[in-house]
Amino acid sequence: MDFDPVRVGVVGFGYWGPKLLRNLINSETTAAVGICEVDEQRRTSAARLHPSLVVVEDFDDLLAIPGLEAVAIATPVHTHYPLASKAVRAGKHVLVTKPFTETTREAADLIALAHERSVSIFVDHTFLFTAAVRKLRELVCAGELGTLLYYDSTRINLGLFQSDVNVIWDLAPHDFSILDFVIPRRPLRIAAVAACHAGNGLADVAYVTIDYGDAFLAHCHLNWLAPMKVRTILVGGSRRMVRYDDVEPDEKIRIYDRGIEVSHANRSATITPDDREGRYQTLISYRTGDIHAPWLDRTEALFLECRTFGRSVRTGEPSAGDPLIGLRVVAMLEAATRSLQEQGAFVDIDWSAEEAFRP
Amino acid sequence: MDFDPVRVGVVGFGYWGPKLLRNLINSETTAAVGICEVDEQRRTSAARLHPSLVVVEDFDDLLAIPGLEAVAIATPVHTHYPLASKAVRAGKHVLVTKPFTETTREAADLIALAHERSVSIFVDHTFLFTAAVRKLRELVCAGELGTLLYYDSTRINLGLFQSDVNVIWDLAPHDFSILDFVIPRRPLRIAAVAACHAGNGLADVAYVTIDYGDAFLAHCHLNWLAPMKVRTILVGGSRRMVRYDDVEPDEKIRIYDRGIEVSHANRSATITPDDREGRYQTLISYRTGDIHAPWLDRTEALFLECRTFGRSVRTGEPSAGDPLIGLRVVAMLEAATRSLQEQGAFVDIDWSAEEAFRP
Amino acid sequence: MDFDPVRVGVVGFGYWGPKLLRNLINSETTAAVGICEVDEQRRTSAARLHPSLVVVEDFDDLLAIPGLEAVAIATPVHTHYPLASKAVRAGKHVLVTKPFTETTREAADLIALAHERSVSIFVDHTFLFTAAVRKLRELVCAGELGTLLYYDSTRINLGLFQSDVNVIWDLAPHDFSILDFVIPRRPLRIAAVAACHAGNGLADVAYVTIDYGDAFLAHCHLNWLAPMKVRTILVGGSRRMVRYDDVEPDEKIRIYDRGIEVSHANRSATITPDDREGRYQTLISYRTGDIHAPWLDRTEALFLECRTFGRSVRTGEPSAGDPLIGLRVVAMLEAATRSLQEQGAFVDIDWSAEEAFRP
Amino acid sequence: MDFDPVRVGVVGFGYWGPKLLRNLINSETTAAVGICEVDEQRRTSAARLHPSLVVVEDFDDLLAIPGLEAVAIATPVHTHYPLASKAVRAGKHVLVTKPFTETTREAADLIALAHERSVSIFVDHTFLFTAAVRKLRELVCAGELGTLLYYDSTRINLGLFQSDVNVIWDLAPHDFSILDFVIPRRPLRIAAVAACHAGNGLADVAYVTIDYGDAFLAHCHLNWLAPMKVRTILVGGSRRMVRYDDVEPDEKIRIYDRGIEVSHANRSATITPDDREGRYQTLISYRTGDIHAPWLDRTEALFLECRTFGRSVRTGEPSAGDPLIGLRVVAMLEAATRSLQEQGAFVDIDWSAEEAFRP
Repeated sequence: MDFDPVRVGVVGFGYWGPKLLRNLINSETTAAVGICEVDEQRRTSAARLHPSLVVVEDFDDLLAIPGLEAVAIATPVHTHYPLASKAVRAGKHVLVTKPFTETTREAADLIALAHERSVSIFVDHTFLFTAAVRKLRELVCAGELGTLLYYDSTRINLGLFQSDVNVIWDLAPHDFSILDFVIPRRPLRIAAVAACHAGNGLADVAYVTIDYGDAFLAHCHLNWLAPMKVRTILVGGSRRMVRYDDVEPDEKIRIYDRGIEVSHANRSATITPDDREGRYQTLISYRTGDIHAPWLDRTEALFLECRTFGRSVRTGEPSAGDPLIGLRVVAMLEAATRSLQEQGAFVDIDWSAEEAFRP
Repeated sequence: MDFDPVRVGVVGFGYWGPKLLRNLINSETTAAVGICEVDEQRRTSAARLHPSLVVVEDFDDLLAIPGLEAVAIATPVHTHYPLASKAVRAGKHVLVTKPFTETTREAADLIALAHERSVSIFVDHTFLFTAAVRKLRELVCAGELGTLLYYDSTRINLGLFQSDVNVIWDLAPHDFSILDFVIPRRPLRIAAVAACHAGNGLADVAYVTIDYGDAFLAHCHLNWLAPMKVRTILVGGSRRMVRYDDVEPDEKIRIYDRGIEVSHANRSATITPDDREGRYQTLISYRTGDIHAPWLDRTEALFLECRTFGRSVRTGEPSAGDPLIGLRVVAMLEAATRSLQEQGAFVDIDWSAEEAFRP
Repeated sequence: MDFDPVRVGVVGFGYWGPKLLRNLINSETTAAVGICEVDEQRRTSAARLHPSLVVVEDFDDLLAIPGLEAVAIATPVHTHYPLASKAVRAGKHVLVTKPFTETTREAADLIALAHERSVSIFVDHTFLFTAAVRKLRELVCAGELGTLLYYDSTRINLGLFQSDVNVIWDLAPHDFSILDFVIPRRPLRIAAVAACHAGNGLADVAYVTIDYGDAFLAHCHLNWLAPMKVRTILVGGSRRMVRYDDVEPDEKIRIYDRGIEVSHANRSATITPDDREGRYQTLISYRTGDIHAPWLDRTEALFLECRTFGRSVRTGEPSAGDPLIGLRVVAMLEAATRSLQEQGAFVDIDWSAEEAFRP
Repeated sequence: MDFDPVRVGVVGFGYWGPKLLRNLINSETTAAVGICEVDEQRRTSAARLHPSLVVVEDFDDLLAIPGLEAVAIATPVHTHYPLASKAVRAGKHVLVTKPFTETTREAADLIALAHERSVSIFVDHTFLFTAAVRKLRELVCAGELGTLLYYDSTRINLGLFQSDVNVIWDLAPHDFSILDFVIPRRPLRIAAVAACHAGNGLADVAYVTIDYGDAFLAHCHLNWLAPMKVRTILVGGSRRMVRYDDVEPDEKIRIYDRGIEVSHANRSATITPDDREGRYQTLISYRTGDIHAPWLDRTEALFLECRTFGRSVRTGEPSAGDPLIGLRVVAMLEAATRSLQEQGAFVDIDWSAEEAFRP
């Protein structure tokens, strides 16, 4: 490393802020200089645990810390846009937790503004820095899985209930960003059904289907009311299938050399849904082969992300923190929200905000 | 037991037929007398394994066996109606594997015909005879789970591909019959999305959502293309939650004393989706309590079912083999098929065929 | 197959007998002709389930069945010798469940007698016919695991209590036969500790250590009083390690590309237990690589065994049913019994009975 | 809390030191003031991560920090005695990681010395502060398990190889301290077998049996060469059985309402090992009941331990940090070492050093 660490202030010291801070301290590309938190009790705790850092209540006081170069925003979603735009206007680089913003309009505004002020915006989609998701992308890109057939994600646990977003806005950004990172094309439509049981108007159980306009089907089960934690993604391909179990300590990624082989007695025959004979002529056989669990590096993803953030601020290198990924994830979230309003029907994803940034 | 065993002939000696036969032999309420199978190789195998049984190719020859009282039909779905109606007309009782028939019209016809001829029709929804599903029903009925919040089922594995039905018609009858057995009201609407990858026009991956017209949300993930077998049902209640893992040998049912408690600072306040302050005022706390796995009887479900079949034929006692359950399951399957045709939109379940049988 | 199936009578229709019978029926190399069982209730059940077989109370009546060529003995251990020797003297081939006999003397007698009468004796060590144990042997023989470091087996569950043997005689034959099959040399000494809690004088919890005279250490945990079933074998090698979990449906064998690499700053240095500096100079690094679970054929082991039994009777081909394996297993069991009597001290295994049969 | 936090310096900043430090900082009963570490690189890292603490190379410099009241020693075992005795002589309280010392003589010396100087010695047996071990003790003390039958521990993983102690001295202190905490009597004898594969003279695979002079059998499998991490303790009782799986996130303790019931046809009969008839008359039946996984508090054990340490220093309250537990654990380790030298034979545990402290 031939550059000085980027001096960062952390905004929000609730659940995620302390984790971000620890990794900004540990990464050699970043250095922590201050903490901004509105809650007094949390400020006291922050000061006790980090006696060498400046702890402030007011965001302006954080921005005013001499030498501060960047802010890492770990606050509720509806504050992302006002905080980030203020920081960018003050010439600071920004790392912002997911989801990026409440609307694609806000996301596009921030990206344009950052470009204008020549600062970086980096969206914290932590999963994109895990060895497991990188392995998944590597397998897909190398054609190891063959044609992709489906993506099925189960992301359930008891809480943590968010007070300002529903379970889709809380958990689906993980899957949407992974899909964006792994699947080399954009989905067309989204359908979402949900239920709310806590009486606060926010969905706590949801099912989201993502349609790519072909036989590849993506689906997420998102649930804050499950009694146990499950974090499983299945990716089916024509050659191999992958199970990514994030709760598993040792075998997060399992590659199954399994699938089906299809042969037709008469391939030129048109098969229609009513063509019972045709179906009988389709011979499906199974391949049931080995299972392989590749060793995965265990470096904490958030540490790698902080390190990448520091480097990308200094070098301008593109990274998985790309705010366009954040924008696309928000576009998908908006579509899911519209589908909920339309009784679970498929609605088109509006890519217009993102298209403005395409070359 | 104060009656003679019911003399049964088995129709179809593929995957399920031999299992049915073994249990009809083992049950003291039934006796096997013959096997009918169109495939010659399977007939040879049947004769070798069961030298004391009559093995025939033609269904009429089975019906002609002296003393035969009932047939157990384990053939492809499209043959259920012709075989069962012929058997009923010949005065034989019928056990038929799921799904009952291809249409609710056929199901209603058979029920009416059987009533007319005073014979029993018994639909083989094997899960309704498992100790796990019975425990689930017992917990729900006793109010142990509180208000039901959701039912989530994952039923995935590699194959067995069916040649005449899609993955919904193959696997959803399990969930639909369990829902019918456990939830004491009828669902209103069904939505289904699916994909077909084997090139035979039959969906092999599907997601089905069942709407009960309230906050209870039921959902099934059905997949013939998954590299491993999963059979898990989660039932969330306001007081307790249950996980039923059918693959687990020892703890199929786990009862979690967990959930959320909701309190409102001002309960009379109307909460709207845009009411950010209202949401902040809703305090949600978690209950994270013990897990309890009740001991479950391990008698094979199909054995209990065969025993029940024999008894119900002799005594007329109602049972979980009730053909109206079978009819309702077909009504739900028909709705799922229509939803597929309507791009995954929710469609109403047509209960009219079943309503004709309500008292 | 160019020979007629071997006509077998099964002796003992308790737990294992029916399984043996089913596989003798299914195997194309064998045919079942009769069942001998002293218990009247079991005879009735046997007759009901197998109406085409001769069911007798007296062993002599079984031997007298016309055309009977072999007996499969599934009775308590202390009856193996009298039954098997009578059968051999009557010119019948014998398949006998494990453990072969109560003493090495009996085992040697039977082998000599069978040789004299030109009939086969086949010992039912079922694990040697599993795909998992065969894969384990293949890996060891091919040097895939490197130098073997240890064998650790856990074989625990609740019951089935045996009435005439302790937990070592019941469960250790599995491990002793696997060790004999997989490890290409004979162990020297055995130590066993045990406890008896059921008040019947028979150990129900035991630990057995097998010493090969070098750094390879084998150990078995055998327990009839454990609340859950565990069947796990770990085999550590210098290059790779294997976990064989027989309870696992899908990944019985997992091969871990893991281990340690040792380097010495000064390899000529003598390292003594007190040589603290020497130890500091030994550098141990870890290899933490992939995990591989090879697909294993799922044919039932007992079916393969029955098929092998029939073929070996007709062709004289050597097999894993070799009675010398049975004899060696009994020699190890005798040593374990002596160690129990000597307070758990290591005792030499007496190989003399087996040495008499070495070429 | 009505006292000031105890001001602690941490000695050793390798694997365990940083964890201790973090918890000493987080606990309200303790405060960290300095770090002592001989390795320069680690000192640099410590200074970077904890800019507000004094970081020194020399232990005397640590002891000289104004206001320092206690030291927490996380260094190799052979340094425990010299460092701790120096600290005690300087009037400092001591927390020392396990195993307490290299010999019972050193342990007894330290306890006597601390008593003389009126300072506390607290041995860090972290497991005694876990909710799981406390639940286990509670169940045993309340008689919930009935008569204890066995304790079986599996504590295996790949590394971390220690450079100055073998696998028994590294891992058995966990089991020995748990046994001391849970079982209300002292064991009599220990047998240990082991193997060394790394070429450094230190056993890396070991089996240790602990004899209590009755039918209760305790056994530990300790292994640094296993490809996966296992941390499982089974405790069998006549009424219930417990499985403690420390790797499990959610159900660390499972209580099985299972066991055997023994009845004798003629209880006055003497049963000898050769009494085959007597054995037949012993009727053993199984109880196979529910499984219960109590919710356990998830507070980090080391945090609770640090909090307890601070409080016990101020109040003198007895705790699970009692150095007599540490002394007894060392007595058991010494016996294991002697057994290794005596070829695995049972050797008496020498309780004399500990008896001197009994009232």
